Amino acid sequence: MEQQGMPLSKVGINGLIARIANNTALKHRASVLGFNDDASAVLDGSKYRLLTNVLFLEGIHFDLIYHPLKHLGYKAVVAAISDIIAMNGCAEQVSVSVGLGQRMTLESVDALMDGMLVACKRYSVDLVDFRPVPSFTGLSIAVAMQGTVNRKNKVSRNGGKPSDLLCVSGDLGSALMGLHLLEREKRVLKSNDLTEPDFGINNDYVLERQLKPEAKTDVVETLKAMNLLPSAMINVKNGLASALWDLCRASRTGCRVHENKIPLHQGTLKAAHEMNFNPLIAALNGGDDYELLFTLPLSEHERITDEFPENIRAIGYLTAPELSCRMMNCNGEEIEIREIGGEKS
Amino acid sequence: MEQQGMPLSKVGINGLIARIANNTALKHRASVLGFNDDASAVLDGSKYRLLTNVLFLEGIHFDLIYHPLKHLGYKAVVAAISDIIAMNGCAEQVSVSVGLGQRMTLESVDALMDGMLVACKRYSVDLVDFRPVPSFTGLSIAVAMQGTVNRKNKVSRNGGKPSDLLCVSGDLGSALMGLHLLEREKRVLKSNDLTEPDFGINNDYVLERQLKPEAKTDVVETLKAMNLLPSAMINVKNGLASALWDLCRASRTGCRVHENKIPLHQGTLKAAHEMNFNPLIAALNGGDDYELLFTLPLSEHERITDEFPENIRAIGYLTAPELSCRMMNCNGEEIEIREIGGEKS
Repeated sequence: MEQQGMPLSKVGINGLIARIANNTALKHRASVLGFNDDASAVLDGSKYRLLTNVLFLEGIHFDLIYHPLKHLGYKAVVAAISDIIAMNGCAEQVSVSVGLGQRMTLESVDALMDGMLVACKRYSVDLVDFRPVPSFTGLSIAVAMQGTVNRKNKVSRNGGKPSDLLCVSGDLGSALMGLHLLEREKRVLKSNDLTEPDFGINNDYVLERQLKPEAKTDVVETLKAMNLLPSAMINVKNGLASALWDLCRASRTGCRVHENKIPLHQGTLKAAHEMNFNPLIAALNGGDDYELLFTLPLSEHERITDEFPENIRAIGYLTAPELSCRMMNCNGEEIEIREIGGEKS
Repeated sequence: MEQQGMPLSKVGINGLIARIANNTALKHRASVLGFNDDASAVLDGSKYRLLTNVLFLEGIHFDLIYHPLKHLGYKAVVAAISDIIAMNGCAEQVSVSVGLGQRMTLESVDALMDGMLVACKRYSVDLVDFRPVPSFTGLSIAVAMQGTVNRKNKVSRNGGKPSDLLCVSGDLGSALMGLHLLEREKRVLKSNDLTEPDFGINNDYVLERQLKPEAKTDVVETLKAMNLLPSAMINVKNGLASALWDLCRASRTGCRVHENKIPLHQGTLKAAHEMNFNPLIAALNGGDDYELLFTLPLSEHERITDEFPENIRAIGYLTAPELSCRMMNCNGEEIEIREIGGEKS
């Protein structure tokens, strides 16, 4: 059915979500909306039950040319766990539906599900349901992940206040550089008759970040051990820029980030150099990093910079909303952070 | 990536599910597997929290030529609610991910989501999350539905005992006859230059059953009012044959069904006659009826046949497992019920 009307690109992903969110009216007092968060929630006595719903589609979220099925299964589960972790929760149960195209065999389903089960084991999650359906349109993976968080420990995107410190875990942009390497070798293999891709020396890090990312349970545990409860937190899945904008929009703040504080891995810098790509752009607009961006009261600054492990970095602070999302670049100029992306979720 | 190996058709959908189920090991004591049920569950004090995960894919579960988007949104939510109801539960929250192809416009997303919100309102379910992602492969709809059921009221597929009565709600095969009508008119419109389909007179019932099915909350309420707790129950989504087999396999029983007791609507008989299709085959192997098949102790038989409303019918009883799933046909012959289907879920 050919549809007439406004292209979705004119509304944008945030506009589309806001439009639907505005039309909902809750009937159950325990329901907590997830439209502006990494998961929805249901209040249940002293805790919240969290739910996220991740859809991975062939051609958009993965390419079976270079995403091995076992890694892909692992990644789909990790992506959903990351949403639960970003609510400061603990992932517990996962229900998986898969649309299986003609090319899938018993062995390929085994590989996909092996990857999921390895991730489940690694993160102590129970695979409680598996629903295969046929597909005419390639592989589709729908992951419904449940978790819990104590009522007083739940962290949303909307709790940030001006002057709160902005912190980020791990490093950014690496998964995108891994993707670019994979895409490059796919093109080379297509145009030549080579049968082995050449990923260059020491590019394992960025490839692994793209193909087999991990959920940042260690970061959440570090914060817990330091008795620090973030005022706001978000799963960085579509690049730092979109995470900053989403967190600031939900918290009704702006932010100021220092370019030279944005964590970039040596492997990312090397791969970016090799491919003539700006690593800062990868950090801002790349996807699939699954790092955590969170905010803490300014009073904790000293303690944080002294006591934080290497995998957590303060990159800036929240500001008044009218100051927008801005970055102090390495030349001392303040520039607006553009929100692109939002094409993936 | 071309996969070598065993075609999935050799294993079948049940074989595939069993294979994955056998590889799972639960880590959380509260988790209850959903592999052999209509939903998974988490035990939570005096109740279970239920979760189902329905994936609707373009070309498999719907055809946008004749499934209007508003109806489709309604149907996707109803399909998921039906799973929760079949556990004797109450659906409460729904989280929706959609893969949106190039053809989708703002108006078409509005129509789809309007349908979902109408279903949410009708069945008192909260839409708590909406996650659009782009799609290269048409429209995909992933519905994660949560609900609850009191611990003592949860009904699974596995509680049936030999001699239990087998009952079914509503009527069967109507949604398939609706689908066949829609397919016929699609072919006619393609081969001619007609612009208006001709569905014949009085075929509204079967069309509505295909395009805008309802969840059988009334049946569950009737049973509750009669103080009847089914020993086993299942959502009839892929035809009576597959529902009988799934229920009997889970309960480790066989069954014996009387052909002349299988409820067929006048509209189904009429449409089947018009299209030269056997309505019994539609009832056994059709999909999308979303009726409830359930079992009750034999002692309730008299009460049931006396007091049951018209929309519940006893169609047979459970037997010892070695007797398999059999049907007494209208000629007095007993035949084995073949389990086909299982291609859809």
